[in-house]
Amino acid sequence: MKIVIIGGVAAGMSAATRLRRLDEHAEIVVLERGEYVSYANCGLPYHIAGTIAEREKLLVASPKYLRQTFNLDLRLQHEVIAIDPQQKIVTIKTPQQPTPIQERYDKLLIAVGSQALQLPIPGSDLPQIHTVRSIPDVDQINQLLADGARHAVVIGAGYIGLEMIEALQQRGLTVELVELAKQVLPLFDHEMVSEVADLLQQHGVKLHLGASAQRFVPTNQQIAVHLSDGRQIKTDLVIMAVGVRPASQLAQAAGLTLGERGGIAVNQHLQTSDPAIYAAGDVIEVQDTVLQQPALIALAGPANRQGRIVAEHMLGRSSRYHSSQGTAIVKVHTTTCAMTGASEKSLQRAKRAYHKIYLHPNDHAGYYPDAQQMHLKLLFAPADGRILGAQIVGGAGVDKRIDVLATAIRAKMSVHDLTELELAYAPPYGSAKDPINMAGFLASNLLDGTVKFWYAEEYPAITEHALIVDVRNPDEYAAWHIPQAINLPLAELRAAIPSLKAQAEGRPIRLHCMVGMRSYIAYRILRQSGFENVATLAGGALTLKAFTH
Amino acid sequence: MKIVIIGGVAAGMSAATRLRRLDEHAEIVVLERGEYVSYANCGLPYHIAGTIAEREKLLVASPKYLRQTFNLDLRLQHEVIAIDPQQKIVTIKTPQQPTPIQERYDKLLIAVGSQALQLPIPGSDLPQIHTVRSIPDVDQINQLLADGARHAVVIGAGYIGLEMIEALQQRGLTVELVELAKQVLPLFDHEMVSEVADLLQQHGVKLHLGASAQRFVPTNQQIAVHLSDGRQIKTDLVIMAVGVRPASQLAQAAGLTLGERGGIAVNQHLQTSDPAIYAAGDVIEVQDTVLQQPALIALAGPANRQGRIVAEHMLGRSSRYHSSQGTAIVKVHTTTCAMTGASEKSLQRAKRAYHKIYLHPNDHAGYYPDAQQMHLKLLFAPADGRILGAQIVGGAGVDKRIDVLATAIRAKMSVHDLTELELAYAPPYGSAKDPINMAGFLASNLLDGTVKFWYAEEYPAITEHALIVDVRNPDEYAAWHIPQAINLPLAELRAAIPSLKAQAEGRPIRLHCMVGMRSYIAYRILRQSGFENVATLAGGALTLKAFTH
Ligand SMILES: Cc1cc2nc3c(=O)[nH]c(=O)nc-3n(C[C@H](O)[C@H](O)[C@H](O)COP(=O)(O)OP(=O)(O)OC[C@H]3O[C@@H](n4cnc5c(N)ncnc54)[C@H](O)[C@@H]3O)c2cc1C
Ligand SMILES: Cc1cc2nc3c(=O)[nH]c(=O)nc-3n(C[C@H](O)[C@H](O)[C@H](O)COP(=O)(O)OP(=O)(O)OC[C@H]3O[C@@H](n4cnc5c(N)ncnc54)[C@H](O)[C@@H]3O)c2cc1C
Ligand SMILES: CC(C)(COP(=O)(O)OP(=O)(O)OC[C@H]1O[C@@H](n2cnc3c(N)ncnc32)[C@H](O)[C@@H]1OP(=O)(O)O)[C@@H](O)C(=O)NCCC(=O)NCCS
Ligand SMILES: CC(C)(COP(=O)(O)OP(=O)(O)OC[C@H]1O[C@@H](n2cnc3c(N)ncnc32)[C@H](O)[C@@H]1OP(=O)(O)O)[C@@H](O)C(=O)NCCC(=O)NCCS
Repeated sequence: MKIVIIGGVAAGMSAATRLRRLDEHAEIVVLERGEYVSYANCGLPYHIAGTIAEREKLLVASPKYLRQTFNLDLRLQHEVIAIDPQQKIVTIKTPQQPTPIQERYDKLLIAVGSQALQLPIPGSDLPQIHTVRSIPDVDQINQLLADGARHAVVIGAGYIGLEMIEALQQRGLTVELVELAKQVLPLFDHEMVSEVADLLQQHGVKLHLGASAQRFVPTNQQIAVHLSDGRQIKTDLVIMAVGVRPASQLAQAAGLTLGERGGIAVNQHLQTSDPAIYAAGDVIEVQDTVLQQPALIALAGPANRQGRIVAEHMLGRSSRYHSSQGTAIVKVHTTTCAMTGASEKSLQRAKRAYHKIYLHPNDHAGYYPDAQQMHLKLLFAPADGRILGAQIVGGAGVDKRIDVLATAIRAKMSVHDLTELELAYAPPYGSAKDPINMAGFLASNLLDGTVKFWYAEEYPAITEHALIVDVRNPDEYAAWHIPQAINLPLAELRAAIPSLKAQAEGRPIRLHCMVGMRSYIAYRILRQSGFENVATLAGGALTLKAFTH
Repeated sequence: MKIVIIGGVAAGMSAATRLRRLDEHAEIVVLERGEYVSYANCGLPYHIAGTIAEREKLLVASPKYLRQTFNLDLRLQHEVIAIDPQQKIVTIKTPQQPTPIQERYDKLLIAVGSQALQLPIPGSDLPQIHTVRSIPDVDQINQLLADGARHAVVIGAGYIGLEMIEALQQRGLTVELVELAKQVLPLFDHEMVSEVADLLQQHGVKLHLGASAQRFVPTNQQIAVHLSDGRQIKTDLVIMAVGVRPASQLAQAAGLTLGERGGIAVNQHLQTSDPAIYAAGDVIEVQDTVLQQPALIALAGPANRQGRIVAEHMLGRSSRYHSSQGTAIVKVHTTTCAMTGASEKSLQRAKRAYHKIYLHPNDHAGYYPDAQQMHLKLLFAPADGRILGAQIVGGAGVDKRIDVLATAIRAKMSVHDLTELELAYAPPYGSAKDPINMAGFLASNLLDGTVKFWYAEEYPAITEHALIVDVRNPDEYAAWHIPQAINLPLAELRAAIPSLKAQAEGRPIRLHCMVGMRSYIAYRILRQSGFENVATLAGGALTLKAFTH
């Protein structure tokens, strides 16, 4: 059997090594366009930053190692320019040969990844404008830095954009960010990341949110970036990080079916419309775990695992790739932003019913030093409490909780199941009621009617017909409060019920506190004391502030 | 409705607060023997250490707060000395009254926790000998330290024992450890914690493993601890941390059914044999999630969640507590030891079939700075790959992986499911193939016959009939190797197959490397090159060394 793999990094090389482990005798040819295989794309920004100082570290497995250990026919600078599914032949361009060469296959894997999007605007081919996808990209950026670049504009505030901002700042540059959305990390719901925008500003990044680059104009050694809001930014370097699209042109030209989102369509065995041709990694369209609709998920974990599955299925095993849920994480200075499953936006876009809760627990017991607060949003199905998605922003312990929730989503757990999880507790690591249990409590309370929430998006309209009652302490109220709110500390609430009744004059009561815990207790007291129309602010003032930011 | 709760800490107070939230009008009486309620037992060692400097921090919720916010009839120094299930009356001793008083209940919760075990040996009532369960215990220990104690003996190397060792060392004491088992952390399998014993020794702790205290003899201001191995240790302070037992005497005297392990027997609603009487926390016997047999699990998470379930069921909800899986974690200096589900020992005791694998992955991508190696052991069912238990020892990221596995166990996942988990990956947090995915790969390989392991416990007997082949590099072999092993680096294996065949002379081949990865690849090569009887050492030399420690 002769297997040809196009693309020698995450999906491609994971397939190649697994193939060899499973079949010592297959002929395995890996064709890689570039000069590097098995490199850590994800480490590229950290190499620019200097955090990963040695370039060699990015090369996870060397060609020599791969050839020796896995007996791979590994060919660098071999670009596949055509696939002929009928003849089972690929056509290859390589500087080592004057004319294209051909290679026969029994089974083919297309693992060519994605392409960084380029803005189709004037000047986008200027030499100071770079995307970050490969080692040569990084070498070129490093060259510009060595040549004295002092100022950079990063376009796009996704993971790579934010990592690049921090990297360039670590190299001493002044950085400005241009992002079309009115928020950073556009995959997140905006209220979850408004503090990340603040954080960037605190670190000296000038933000241009809700703005787009219109054109790039060369000026002396620099370029001027013209924004949609009329501003111009003179800069030495532009990082274009506006997203990726599947590199599916090769497959399309070969007549393979693409999906509705432009990735290669595959079945659960990762076979394309031609069963002898597989595809894996960024280039394919996957099933979204939660939304059960086609999705493009350009992440390394799925790519690696897909490659492994392709290898197994090529060799006759029945392995399947079920779906991707888009679990992702990014470090922004000391803050971690993580998500898994659907966001509120994506649920709205897909017109799915959902409930949501917010909480702001500590990563570990408050009485043990250095507890750090995190902000957690959980989305779940009104019908059965099935977990749909989660977003967490904070410091320590964020990655842990998102992974637990990612596991829970994969296990099709409901919020009730979260209340039962027995997670590891000792004071340095968690709380007897872990944030995950807490999320389960809140969500179950909402589902079974123990609590009724009101939400930040109802503010300020809500103030027109409801009485806002702030149940925090007077000093907290004095320091900051919702303009229309009256103050009635939780500890005094029971005694104040008669006067509150009078004050409400039949109006609905909308409670709030700082994180939502005290006002939840207040809610329970009032609901059982003759108040019918009461609700408590989900996530409290912290979420309100994040929302109205 | 009048509800009486005996015991005002984790289970008791969680029930009380949830009761009040669900029922504003119930009469809720909390009877607590001591002077404190809602305190952080788990923080006690850290308070002695000075890590939690302020004593007030241990008091998670003050009586004033609890009375005000939750309208609880909270009575300190009220010890229940008898329960009369027929009359629905408890009898209470309190210094505030000359004679016992009585209190009627409609529903009763017994949440009296556990008692620290005392060794029944001569001298165990000496004033320098202390257990660590309550704030007064800690005050007494602190007093001994203030009085100039310089040397301590800790008896018992469980969680509390290890936390106390570190605490006392932080206070400047010289500490010796006496433990009956031949290992520290006796709930763990020994090979997983042999490095923890080393770590303690490196930190200056003198270990007496496999030894027991026989008697305590007063000598001047000190006491001499006489050990089973004939040694005597003169010390100023003895910490007795030899375990706990459920404080079920009160229930037993009231005629309530106890379980086979001595805890109060309860149904899934946490009702005792008298349906008006509930029990929760350390005092009950629970169902073991994995072994499906009665277990005593003295942990704060279960206690808190059980209290909440009792409250719900008392008020007519159908809530259930399904089982406990014993997820636990402890910090020993910078090392974290964590486990969930069954251990190999407990599986053997219960005569359950199991498979096991070992791996030693990094907490995050090796190319990103400061990656820390962890040691992971996974136990799973031979029939269907169902996860039975896990133990992890290492630095960063251990708590995350144990929580993911704890969630997977609760979800009844198999090792195949682990291969599919989509966990959050960016270089600072994990790897594209997370340690959890890796564990799934190894275990699936074992189950489907892709790999055959040999285990450290087979050594050295195995050397009598098998050829041990060390596939590491010559420099690694030179630095350390199994005496009987020959060296054949992985990169040269294919070429050396003919000579290896000759050398093996028909003997089985037992491969190994450092962590098990290279020898797994070697295994795959040899198995497909005419070698029938081959196996690769699970966990490699690292596990072998830990085993034969
Ligand atoms: C800067 C950066 C940071 C990232 N950070 C993260 C992160 O933190 N976490 C995460 O999960 N993911 C991250 N990713 C995404 C992750 O790297 C990708 O999802 C993953 O590499 C996709 O794997 P793949 O095998 O599909 O494609 P790639 O890894 O991109 O490999 C495709 C290979 O195919 C080659 N190729 C393309 N066309 C041809 C052709 N015609 N002939 C021959 N060869 C061809 C390319 O040269 C390339 O080497 C990051 C990506 C980048 C660029
Ligand atoms: C030093 C230490 C460290 C620990 N560390 C951890 C850890 O890191 N992680 C973890 O999960 N668990 C830990 N635990 C265990 C955890 O604290 C217990 O599992 C948990 O507190 C049990 O809760 P409970 O409500 O059953 O009992 P407790 O919290 O012990 O409360 C029982 C209460 O009942 C009172 N009482 C007893 N008898 C009577 C009576 N007759 N009348 C009135 N009142 C009575 C007692 O005075 C006590 O206050 C630790 C425990 C200790 C002692
Ligand atoms: C490195 C690379 C070549 C893959 O190599 P690989 O050998 O398949 O993967 P790993 O090195 O992670 O090893 C995993 C294998 O070792 C096995 N293994 C790991 N630890 C083991 C142990 N202790 N004992 C036995 N086997 C072990 C696993 O089971 C798995 O084998 P399997 O797939 O046959 O089950 C490929 O992932 C790659 O090119 N990576 C870099 C590019 C990249 O991923 N970029 C995007 C992210 S930055
Ligand atoms: C503190 C103690 C009294 C329990 O108090 P509690 O109010 O039940 O628990 P918490 O303070 O953790 O709050 C949890 C409640 O707040 C709710 N909540 C938490 N955050 C919320 C938010 N942001 N919005 C709305 N509700 C929220 C939860 O849903 C839960 O309410 P519910 O049980 O009615 O669903 C009890 O756990 C205790 O005594 N602890 C100390 C002793 C101990 O546990 N020792 C052993 C470990 S060291």
